[in-house]
Amino acid sequence: MSSARREPKLDTAPPRGMRDILPDEAEIRDFAVTTILGVYRRFGFRRIETPALESLHFLTGGDGGENEKLIFKVLKRGEKLRSSQTEASDAELADLGLRFDLTVPLARYFAHNQAKLPYPLKAIQIGPVWRAERPQHGRYRQFTQCDIDILGEKSELAEIELIAATSEALLALGLHDFRIRLNDRRILIELARHCGFEDRAFNSVFIALDKLDKIGLDGVQRELDAAGHARAAVAKLVEAVRSFTERAGAGLAALPFYREGDEPYAGLGRIQAAIEQLASGYTIEYDPTLVRGMSYYTGPIFEISYGREALSIAGGGRYDEMIAKISGRSVPASGFSIGFERTVAILGARRDAGRTSEDRLAILFDPRQTAAADAVRIARDARRKHDVVLVEVKRKNFSKQLDDLKAQGIRRYAVLRPGVEDLHLIPLDGEAAAPRPADRPKRP
Amino acid sequence: MSSARREPKLDTAPPRGMRDILPDEAEIRDFAVTTILGVYRRFGFRRIETPALESLHFLTGGDGGENEKLIFKVLKRGEKLRSSQTEASDAELADLGLRFDLTVPLARYFAHNQAKLPYPLKAIQIGPVWRAERPQHGRYRQFTQCDIDILGEKSELAEIELIAATSEALLALGLHDFRIRLNDRRILIELARHCGFEDRAFNSVFIALDKLDKIGLDGVQRELDAAGHARAAVAKLVEAVRSFTERAGAGLAALPFYREGDEPYAGLGRIQAAIEQLASGYTIEYDPTLVRGMSYYTGPIFEISYGREALSIAGGGRYDEMIAKISGRSVPASGFSIGFERTVAILGARRDAGRTSEDRLAILFDPRQTAAADAVRIARDARRKHDVVLVEVKRKNFSKQLDDLKAQGIRRYAVLRPGVEDLHLIPLDGEAAAPRPADRPKRP
Repeated sequence: MSSARREPKLDTAPPRGMRDILPDEAEIRDFAVTTILGVYRRFGFRRIETPALESLHFLTGGDGGENEKLIFKVLKRGEKLRSSQTEASDAELADLGLRFDLTVPLARYFAHNQAKLPYPLKAIQIGPVWRAERPQHGRYRQFTQCDIDILGEKSELAEIELIAATSEALLALGLHDFRIRLNDRRILIELARHCGFEDRAFNSVFIALDKLDKIGLDGVQRELDAAGHARAAVAKLVEAVRSFTERAGAGLAALPFYREGDEPYAGLGRIQAAIEQLASGYTIEYDPTLVRGMSYYTGPIFEISYGREALSIAGGGRYDEMIAKISGRSVPASGFSIGFERTVAILGARRDAGRTSEDRLAILFDPRQTAAADAVRIARDARRKHDVVLVEVKRKNFSKQLDDLKAQGIRRYAVLRPGVEDLHLIPLDGEAAAPRPADRPKRP
Repeated sequence: MSSARREPKLDTAPPRGMRDILPDEAEIRDFAVTTILGVYRRFGFRRIETPALESLHFLTGGDGGENEKLIFKVLKRGEKLRSSQTEASDAELADLGLRFDLTVPLARYFAHNQAKLPYPLKAIQIGPVWRAERPQHGRYRQFTQCDIDILGEKSELAEIELIAATSEALLALGLHDFRIRLNDRRILIELARHCGFEDRAFNSVFIALDKLDKIGLDGVQRELDAAGHARAAVAKLVEAVRSFTERAGAGLAALPFYREGDEPYAGLGRIQAAIEQLASGYTIEYDPTLVRGMSYYTGPIFEISYGREALSIAGGGRYDEMIAKISGRSVPASGFSIGFERTVAILGARRDAGRTSEDRLAILFDPRQTAAADAVRIARDARRKHDVVLVEVKRKNFSKQLDDLKAQGIRRYAVLRPGVEDLHLIPLDGEAAAPRPADRPKRP
């Protein structure tokens, strides 16, 4: 840098809870997007995009649950408050908001564009969403979601394809030995009813049950008791969950209210069987304790756990009622979302991640000896044989320059010499690569 | 769709001036991004990302010019106006805004992350920006920008690489016969001074000159006269421009104040010569009337015109002062931006755009005869031989279904028959493909 180093004049950090992405991570993200897109496209899914901003009345329609409280709202353009007002509400100041997920915008998109879309629509969406959450480790206010949805397919074909395609995508990323957990919102309701909870208590029961992974069965029981639910119902639920978790692999048929051949049991069984025949490198099982947070789910729900910590890396389910609320037209719908940021973090933690076998070179030159035009032409020719060819002016601090190149994944370099077109390539890997003394110029 | 068609309950259009992207266009956009990224990466550029939101004090620092008036501002979280206030300014309500370009965020990014970045940094950015412009045909309030920048290279190597890489990327997209126009902000200033304009008039002169393409030389003259500039200076400028445009290909040396071997003339000549030796399928020329809108440019500026209408599809230049304003550290910088939306529109208008040679199939089945599990398994196997394999339930309106598949780029289909694993593929192309009567089932 040409002048002396001074302190930054301004705080240059990105906004609170948001972050800059460095080149190495960007490479992993691009690899993940390309790989996932490639697999989904082979299943016939097609990418779509909606704007980052939506009308607040869509975003606050109720389907976003708690996320609706986390919306970044955009100030109306040119609005000043009238002096007669003493207190302005957000609604008077803002009419647009940044989307907090890709599902609510998809419902609007489908309602608006259905005449121009395939039906059933098999959609891929990959893009940023924003939530004004309290910043915490590993959780950001802008993050990428990666969803597939099938709109217009009422049979379990939708779930089978969503799960098969997403499993395939995770395998293609190099993630193996994950565990797919499967449940059905209607079975969950049946379970709550069977235990003796009242209908209006269901949501609160599910919220407590959803925490099983984090607080354990005792914790769930304490939370249900504290919420004042009927003691007998709580005891019955706890007993049902315990008996299931004790008998690993106990299937649907172990449910006390199971009715063979009836829906939703038969459908869930078919989903499980269809995936089991495809599954290689992962497993699928019925899990009566799987809840999934969003209240819009109406049928099968599913989640993928990865690794020893059983990190949830994908989740989804059927939401048959959502689109009718917006379009007035009933459209069956089911979707699956890969936890993109978590998946990128897993890939980034692996030593082999983003290490391509690309052949990356740097061509260095001294502008007092070689014209930039010549360096650029030689580099253009070298790109016929090599994947990446970087051109840089040779710096005074040459060994620092070589270290920088190595850190960028450059594997070999050449220093141009006047009148010489051939590249004398010197490896950069392993130990600090000391520059070899210049060979005698050879004429081509 | 399972129920009768009703009217939408809500206006489902995207927000004013924004738009939904349909699958066909999304495919072209992905093709463009992948192609451009591929070329830039081969030159050693690396992708980076910044958040969509930035602090308003960065966005309104002056380098955004007119764009700073078009910022979508985000309401502070949980802010209500105090009742004592009678009129609230935007600044009291908002502290963040959606970025209006990728250059101002890049300067902040570099200042914040420089210790972790390669130097020189060769950055790629592709992402959405937002401007609250008056909506008009072909101009949207959210659009994608696609920039490369080199930070830390003070020689013309930066400009040569920016122009070479961008030309290569456009050729890879299938755009040929474009014209690169080259100028230098310092020569522009010299020209204005030579004509006798006062220093403080330069900006207004450049703004008028920038409209040459749209309003012609007479229009520029009228605008300069109307602005009250010295008549003699206006006449001299008009004469200089006329003599240049009349002598097509008149180079730098035709400038009355040209000094051979001196900067910036020598540097501009070297850029032109370096690109000329690489150019195959495009041309580069000095254009004394090229202005480029942004006032932050300090050296060479360049633009690419395409097709008979000479649409500007890329533009850039050197901006050596911007980063020092934020980081307090002088860092030479130069960048080039492809007009992504315009480029996608050009690709979309071509018949061959997005027409891949992909082998796309649909497998259709009747769920009363074939289990979804079988259909999905057969499709999985078919994906070993074919690029895209879609599975759908055979619809009652079968010929409509085939038309829909054709519209999606599906080329062949097969209807599954019980007990038959082999796919009997029927072409969908050309004329409306009538389904062939089912062949007799064959055993494998």
